[in-house]
Amino acid sequence: MENQKLGSQTYQPGQAPVIIGHGCVGGRKEQEGPLGRHLDHSSKDDLFGAKTWEQAESRMQQLALDAALKRAQLHTDNLDFLLAGDLLNQCIGSGYAARAISAPFLGLYGACSTMGESIAVGTMLLSSGAGRYAAAVTSSHFCSAERQYRTPLEYGCQRTPTAQWTATAAGAVILTSDNVWGVRIPRITIGKVVDYGIKDTANMGSAMAPAAYSTIKAHFEDTGLAPDYYDLIITGDLGKLGSEILADFFATDGCPLSNYSDCGLLLFDMNQQDVHAGASGCGCSASVLCTHLLPGLLNGQWKRVLFCPTGALHSPTSAMQGESVPGICHAIALEGVQ
Amino acid sequence: MENQKLGSQTYQPGQAPVIIGHGCVGGRKEQEGPLGRHLDHSSKDDLFGAKTWEQAESRMQQLALDAALKRAQLHTDNLDFLLAGDLLNQCIGSGYAARAISAPFLGLYGACSTMGESIAVGTMLLSSGAGRYAAAVTSSHFCSAERQYRTPLEYGCQRTPTAQWTATAAGAVILTSDNVWGVRIPRITIGKVVDYGIKDTANMGSAMAPAAYSTIKAHFEDTGLAPDYYDLIITGDLGKLGSEILADFFATDGCPLSNYSDCGLLLFDMNQQDVHAGASGCGCSASVLCTHLLPGLLNGQWKRVLFCPTGALHSPTSAMQGESVPGICHAIALEGVQ
Repeated sequence: MENQKLGSQTYQPGQAPVIIGHGCVGGRKEQEGPLGRHLDHSSKDDLFGAKTWEQAESRMQQLALDAALKRAQLHTDNLDFLLAGDLLNQCIGSGYAARAISAPFLGLYGACSTMGESIAVGTMLLSSGAGRYAAAVTSSHFCSAERQYRTPLEYGCQRTPTAQWTATAAGAVILTSDNVWGVRIPRITIGKVVDYGIKDTANMGSAMAPAAYSTIKAHFEDTGLAPDYYDLIITGDLGKLGSEILADFFATDGCPLSNYSDCGLLLFDMNQQDVHAGASGCGCSASVLCTHLLPGLLNGQWKRVLFCPTGALHSPTSAMQGESVPGICHAIALEGVQ
Repeated sequence: MENQKLGSQTYQPGQAPVIIGHGCVGGRKEQEGPLGRHLDHSSKDDLFGAKTWEQAESRMQQLALDAALKRAQLHTDNLDFLLAGDLLNQCIGSGYAARAISAPFLGLYGACSTMGESIAVGTMLLSSGAGRYAAAVTSSHFCSAERQYRTPLEYGCQRTPTAQWTATAAGAVILTSDNVWGVRIPRITIGKVVDYGIKDTANMGSAMAPAAYSTIKAHFEDTGLAPDYYDLIITGDLGKLGSEILADFFATDGCPLSNYSDCGLLLFDMNQQDVHAGASGCGCSASVLCTHLLPGLLNGQWKRVLFCPTGALHSPTSAMQGESVPGICHAIALEGVQ
């Protein structure tokens, strides 16, 4: 079968790339959460042996990649592409992690959608014949994100009920163009930037829900598939409010999603861990992918999952200049061993 | 011919994608420079009708893309991919520009190498069969970059002799997978992150030169081509010092580059415009590409050009934490109408 474009936003490789390794690293709060026991590494002080939170993020990316490579029985030298991005200014979490990795590097910025973007780009690059192995890596860190986006931790700012908790986590997956055993990526849908005018930067779920709606709808229009084709449709980090808004959108269309969840609701214990509207950050969807979705696809819990990481493309500067928050979402179909 | 990977970092599409449109926008200083008359739009106050420098960057990207689409006789609706990035925190120059453009969006971060990264990714995506048209867009703005990376303009800080002047410019090119008339992209080389330990953030040329050396050397090793295969080898924004260092590296190898230049030396009049070591910023290589290289390839001035944008993957935070400056460079072969 030939590689082909379906509709306006979807790509279907002739031979689906396969995820042959995954790795995940999380902080103390993530380790204490419901998925914590599946982490490859954790750190009690969230510093992972580094001196700063930013350097800790780079270290987390390296640890996650090492774990993924180990599962894939590969070394960094085998990688044709390292695709990585994060939330830090100038993506330094990824740039400094990549410094220690001898692989062709492509930096990506999709905010919290980065795990989706990197897997989507990796899928297209590998099926073009440009390489055999690609790594998709991302991270976020609560402490570096708080001081960059909001206020320094020392300030002790009270959080609003709609606020989400940035995950201290990094995830990595290894893709191959080989026809081998593993979770396949039979199709992807690249999102458009969508902005419904939300200006409250403590309400990211509402800002990103319209982008998730746009991309998931495009996925079904482009492919002709119905939502129940998938055992699970899961967004990145819409959290409690955003995921309710997304469900409302589809219900209003007369097409309620019966098989829908959100990574932001799964990473932490929503009753016990005081994270308000849920988890967020690039590391949220990346870690739920690596600790929950991929293991579940490999052990037969699900056969088909539509993984839809979401991102908010604003900055503190744009917010201070009165801009609203544009969102984006990419959809990745994941199919387990049948 | 099949798409194939050459050596460890180079990709050769079976059918080379073609650049069928380009557009360029610059500020007042760029308009007064030696390439100024080739700009599609300029702005006397560098605001392009916007209220802030950051919003001006988004406006510049839109104007550059409009000009490129016009030359290609296309509309934004025709785009299968919009590939864009910039220097601003969270790449807001690109994210907010993309909000007004109905096209699947992939945000990239390669600092000043972004024009190279976006064309390289576009080349691979189109030759995978994932689409027919892709736009590669980037920008930088002197005023937004100064206050973000260095000091606010109002502070009037004196610049060191090694400092470069961030271009206020945006460039856009339209790629197609169709076999049509235009500048072809027969091969690309994806760079690795290289860090020789330079910590002086007012000396970006020195920090990026080792990455340019690594990528250009890999290009010749992977392809078996000699430097004189190209009529011109041109780096992104190494400036006066960095380009001398790169020339030294190759001369020391016994392989002097007789056909070498740098975009950072061409955008401004180095004697008259008081830019110290030359131009820099994502907009530097993008605007030299669109106002000088592509027109020269189309009119037969050159037949083959190796375009090598360079980027420094640091941030003000990483510099304050004592980190050195990692560099990256991607090489894009451009071949004109024979």
